[in-house]
Amino acid sequence: MNEISSHPSKDKILFTPGPLTTSPTVKAAMLHDAGSWHFEFNERVWGIRLQLLELAQVSQADGWEVVLLQGSGTYGVEAVFATCVPPEGKVCVIVNGAYGERMLRMLEHLKIPHVALHSDENALPDLVQLETLLASDSAITHVAAVHCETTTGILNPIAEIGRITRQHACLFIVDAMSSFGALPIDLEACGIDFLISSANKCLEGVPGFCFVIARRDNLLANKNHARSLSLNLIEQLLGFEKNGQFRYTPPTHTLLAFEQALKELQIEGGISARSERYQSNHALLVAGMSQMGFRPYLPPAVQSYIITAFHYPADTHFSFSEFYMGMSGKGFIIYPGKISRADTFRIGNIGHLFEDDIYRLLVAIRETISELGIQLNPTPETTQLPSHFAISQS
Amino acid sequence: MNEISSHPSKDKILFTPGPLTTSPTVKAAMLHDAGSWHFEFNERVWGIRLQLLELAQVSQADGWEVVLLQGSGTYGVEAVFATCVPPEGKVCVIVNGAYGERMLRMLEHLKIPHVALHSDENALPDLVQLETLLASDSAITHVAAVHCETTTGILNPIAEIGRITRQHACLFIVDAMSSFGALPIDLEACGIDFLISSANKCLEGVPGFCFVIARRDNLLANKNHARSLSLNLIEQLLGFEKNGQFRYTPPTHTLLAFEQALKELQIEGGISARSERYQSNHALLVAGMSQMGFRPYLPPAVQSYIITAFHYPADTHFSFSEFYMGMSGKGFIIYPGKISRADTFRIGNIGHLFEDDIYRLLVAIRETISELGIQLNPTPETTQLPSHFAISQS
Repeated sequence: MNEISSHPSKDKILFTPGPLTTSPTVKAAMLHDAGSWHFEFNERVWGIRLQLLELAQVSQADGWEVVLLQGSGTYGVEAVFATCVPPEGKVCVIVNGAYGERMLRMLEHLKIPHVALHSDENALPDLVQLETLLASDSAITHVAAVHCETTTGILNPIAEIGRITRQHACLFIVDAMSSFGALPIDLEACGIDFLISSANKCLEGVPGFCFVIARRDNLLANKNHARSLSLNLIEQLLGFEKNGQFRYTPPTHTLLAFEQALKELQIEGGISARSERYQSNHALLVAGMSQMGFRPYLPPAVQSYIITAFHYPADTHFSFSEFYMGMSGKGFIIYPGKISRADTFRIGNIGHLFEDDIYRLLVAIRETISELGIQLNPTPETTQLPSHFAISQS
Repeated sequence: MNEISSHPSKDKILFTPGPLTTSPTVKAAMLHDAGSWHFEFNERVWGIRLQLLELAQVSQADGWEVVLLQGSGTYGVEAVFATCVPPEGKVCVIVNGAYGERMLRMLEHLKIPHVALHSDENALPDLVQLETLLASDSAITHVAAVHCETTTGILNPIAEIGRITRQHACLFIVDAMSSFGALPIDLEACGIDFLISSANKCLEGVPGFCFVIARRDNLLANKNHARSLSLNLIEQLLGFEKNGQFRYTPPTHTLLAFEQALKELQIEGGISARSERYQSNHALLVAGMSQMGFRPYLPPAVQSYIITAFHYPADTHFSFSEFYMGMSGKGFIIYPGKISRADTFRIGNIGHLFEDDIYRLLVAIRETISELGIQLNPTPETTQLPSHFAISQS
């Protein structure tokens, strides 16, 4: 059906929140050793930085910068806290999942004063509570939120949070790990001051570094109180500006793969085209799963098209580990749940995946469920599957 | 001469302290996407950890652990300070180059009390001074040293430093970034409590993670006061033990490359065989450079066989950037100097490099120097070059 989705490497296909299945050409870009001090490599890193700003629809001329940082996405979020919250700062963290909770743990480690605004894992944050909190606690200097909380797949309303944050003269930190590249984000309109994302999510590179997009003056306002040398974003930025280099050894191969991934994003048609592909993947996934009798955990209104949590079947014989192993044996890697109050598993539909991959996933799920003798409650009347994707017949 | 040294990728060859030229098969191991939650991947990570302990000639049975950590080697050194120095701790850093200085900057960022024992960049640390310092300042709990200081290539006497450290009941932290894999290190005999190294140095993997080898009880003694979540080595260890996983997204492709690199190290004959190759590379390099008239910065007694700093030629027309560009044009990447009081450049001889590569480097240096019209003072009488490597004739 689709020559790109043939996955010639025969690796198991990853239906996870990341690391993701990437294109063969992205991986092939890593077949080269580059010198991290060498000008040719540094010019390519410079090009990557400019392209990231373009993708974010901001520019250095308008005062924006991007800082690449070695490590996973978590390092980037912690780096923003460690570098850009001044000693007298206090952070309000909006929490409705594991990644919000992780921010709290970072702030505890860094001994930065903070307060949490919790909501249920299947509910959007309470914006009235946020207003009240910011109005009542003038010590709060920063608000931090996760855009797509992959714990559930919920999409948090960053534009509204940003508006309230700005009204109270706070700075806004957004973990856009799983959303950047999958949907357009208007940093200015959302009032975002620091956006963090990662090489191995919807930009479809491989893991090894993350990046922070921020206003230059917000970064430089925080000189001299970074709580970590490795995670010091300002010195990292000044390092790039001094000689084009990472301060410390960068993951050179990951950067070459990322450069190729950005090329392929452009060829695909940019973020809007990628967004459409992910939406198609997601619509097919949910329609197929619903037709088989699986129930999504979240109401559709707050569900992102990035990763979806499904309830376990009601059949008490269902074992996630048996299901997982059955799927793995067929070449498909799905993802366990992470929700505290419900038994769920998750399926991601991002990465180098196409409708054909989703279709084959659905067929494998139907077969695995059948092999395990699990009873589902199919609801064929609700199907939105195109007829050629019907999966209720063998 | 050597089928492995043919470097089929046609990349420029890296004569640097890292990232290094790696084998084609190490790079090819990255042509696969692996799921970081998946049991097959985690078994491979577990295998990597066991192999690292074997290479270090220590074992879990004897109380040793290895913690892999995302990021560059610098992250690993900072992680040891951030996690394993208690709030009441104080670190004595032995400094004779940029990497010792970097440790001081980490400790400043982390607000950990510290004292430096400086010596000249071309001199070994003064062990009598170290004795005196540790005897006079009972607040010191840790001593930190760089094994091979790649600023100059000097090899610091970790066995002697370790003996003194232990006599004063301090713990010993060794940055073995550029030495682990290149020469045998007896952790027990050297009294090392924490050894840090990196995937992309003498184990000849690609960059993306580092690792810390430490005694389990020393690690666990430091629960609850880590100064960073991302760099929290104890939680990282407990994460591996809980479910075999990295806490946060690992550089999966880098790990697959590293697994292959460890296989190739074993095929080569382990650390002793690799040590011999690096020694041959280094002997040929120094002989050839001396024959042309270049003077090494360090006296041979303290010079490692990993990286070598050479003085600029006396000819005032010499420009390092012209020399660098000339070499780059011929496909060879050398390294600038980093020494504060002398004009030097550096040549590394580690990585997937063989005598034939060193020979071709020497020929390219001779040609470049000639093209630039630089006068050297050849000293043919000191040559130790085998006749077939003679480079003074065209």
